[in-house]
Amino acid sequence: IAYGNWRGALVNCIFVTYQFTGEDPKSIADVIRAEQTIEFPFELAPTWIQEEVVGKVEEIASTDKQNHSITISYNPDVTGGELNQFLNVLWGNVSLFPGVKIVELKLPEEFVAKFKGPRFGISGLRGLIGAQTRPLVSTALKPMGSDAATLAQMARTLAMAGFDLIKDDHSLANQPWATWRERVTLVTRAVQEANAITGKNCLYAPSLNLPFDQVVDAAHTAKELGAGALLVLPGITSFDSMRLLASDDSIALPIQGHPAMLGSLVTSKTEGISHGIVMGTLMRLAGADISIFPNIGGRFSFSKDQCLEITERSRDNLGNLYPILISPAGGMTLDRIPEMIEMYGNDTALLIGGALSRGDLADNAARMCEIVHAY
Amino acid sequence: IAYGNWRGALVNCIFVTYQFTGEDPKSIADVIRAEQTIEFPFELAPTWIQEEVVGKVEEIASTDKQNHSITISYNPDVTGGELNQFLNVLWGNVSLFPGVKIVELKLPEEFVAKFKGPRFGISGLRGLIGAQTRPLVSTALKPMGSDAATLAQMARTLAMAGFDLIKDDHSLANQPWATWRERVTLVTRAVQEANAITGKNCLYAPSLNLPFDQVVDAAHTAKELGAGALLVLPGITSFDSMRLLASDDSIALPIQGHPAMLGSLVTSKTEGISHGIVMGTLMRLAGADISIFPNIGGRFSFSKDQCLEITERSRDNLGNLYPILISPAGGMTLDRIPEMIEMYGNDTALLIGGALSRGDLADNAARMCEIVHAY
Repeated sequence: IAYGNWRGALVNCIFVTYQFTGEDPKSIADVIRAEQTIEFPFELAPTWIQEEVVGKVEEIASTDKQNHSITISYNPDVTGGELNQFLNVLWGNVSLFPGVKIVELKLPEEFVAKFKGPRFGISGLRGLIGAQTRPLVSTALKPMGSDAATLAQMARTLAMAGFDLIKDDHSLANQPWATWRERVTLVTRAVQEANAITGKNCLYAPSLNLPFDQVVDAAHTAKELGAGALLVLPGITSFDSMRLLASDDSIALPIQGHPAMLGSLVTSKTEGISHGIVMGTLMRLAGADISIFPNIGGRFSFSKDQCLEITERSRDNLGNLYPILISPAGGMTLDRIPEMIEMYGNDTALLIGGALSRGDLADNAARMCEIVHAY
Repeated sequence: IAYGNWRGALVNCIFVTYQFTGEDPKSIADVIRAEQTIEFPFELAPTWIQEEVVGKVEEIASTDKQNHSITISYNPDVTGGELNQFLNVLWGNVSLFPGVKIVELKLPEEFVAKFKGPRFGISGLRGLIGAQTRPLVSTALKPMGSDAATLAQMARTLAMAGFDLIKDDHSLANQPWATWRERVTLVTRAVQEANAITGKNCLYAPSLNLPFDQVVDAAHTAKELGAGALLVLPGITSFDSMRLLASDDSIALPIQGHPAMLGSLVTSKTEGISHGIVMGTLMRLAGADISIFPNIGGRFSFSKDQCLEITERSRDNLGNLYPILISPAGGMTLDRIPEMIEMYGNDTALLIGGALSRGDLADNAARMCEIVHAY
């Protein structure tokens, strides 16, 4: 089914569709299929490399002189079965081209099978939290500058109110006002104490936007301290850091993926990679159980279609990887909850942050839980 | 000198200048300064957090209703002195905004002093190679698909011809045709044998575009096997992976930084981060001794001004970090060498790849060395 134009149909291919804005799609197609593999003049490569290593142009469809769709198939072996080299094949040097955007990606099952993907996915996470069908209630600890005890008190209030997920604000790292260790120690304790009282299992996700050599150790520390989840920023610490954390059986915590810095992959209409592929497919391939992204009508710029593309790719077929929860966020308020559930359905972790602090936090938190539980 | 608008001038600030395309720059400035720090409604934050944690708008200059320049100063404490959180402050959530581009960045010396930066820089690398003033001669091993023995033979030929730097093609990872270990073993041996004959010190840089948990170990292995340098793709494995490798005294090898996937940060005119900041300042802060980028007139799209901005930021004052070599590349040919030296000066590692294989590799390699040495 996914063999493409390969000799003898021996290869299950990776199909990448590029939207190309410009003239002469045939030439750019030939440039891309070599650039992303051998990065070498095609005609100088040995015949077998031309045939088995270089990508193949499967289709060029043009709507007019300036707008084209180019589909190229790649032998999965060019990725070496590794996520970092897969990203390199997908977007490494082509990222430096003008007018090229990835709009479709089809991965063969054999390739996807090299990745464990999300450890929990929607149903696993629902099981952990004990919420079988309703949307989840999620928030972030902020603002930066607060000391660890203040953040812990905030977490306690939220967990007592019945929140399912509490994450570090994505900007909390190792600032002098609350170091990572102190914050994670106090917050996990507060959430555990609240859970003991409520009988629920609110999951606190400390951020792992930490130095390269501390990420994995910090995940283990977070686990030891009693954290229930992890927050990863793959646009900064790399998608492969997330893959590693998700696949580590000695960690085994659900992962929330945050889109920091990933905006540059998606905001341009003519360059980059589509929203759904980045925040749906790649997040999932790398092992996120929840993909956080900016909802329409908040502080950001995503359109309804872009948000729904992320949603679709978070839930569609991707080998045998679990579908994942989406978490539309970014300046959301309580009055938008019904609209969000309507738009995204129940498999959504509704993330409201700063707005909960407008007035009394405990009251707002209780009201948010009430509204969501009513669905 | 770099205090900005902070109370009592107690803070040496990070100054970020954003180009904003759109209306109402005052509002977006207020959004950005909170978004990149507290990510919380400003008016709800305690006064001291408003004053000491949130960024401050230093200047808004407008050329017309749609084009503005916004400068915001940040307290370096919001970065926690860590590169990943610094990147998050710089571009984390703002990456998701439309019409915002970072065009200027000024870092206080105290902040830069937290980073070791390039271990060798221009003069250190020249000392290693034994080339005090001339441009360096650099190439890449390709094409993917070649077996390790073939790549090693290629490296031998290039080192015998007098090349200073030979790197893995950035797409070489752990493919079945030549696994990382086999390739690095055979190529280092070939280059060492050639060096023993020529008396020169050609540096081979294996690629470290490997899984997150293998990057550091592979650098040590490369060192043990006798590699003379390392190739890092910070757009994929993270800038912080480079920082760690560069600052590790037990590795202590020069680092070539490759721009794979970084294109998405720079190609848009209205969004992203300027070429010079990404491929000059960030590469250097993270410890690259050589910044590779696509030259004008090759397969890519960078303009002369963009290339020169990278050059300038690779060499200007940045705390006490060493200036670094630039390596303009991407479809270069021998006949362009004079023009490139003219444009970039001698502190340049001229990188020609595939074109050397057009005809006889040994002849072309010898000719390239001859042309460059003549300068």
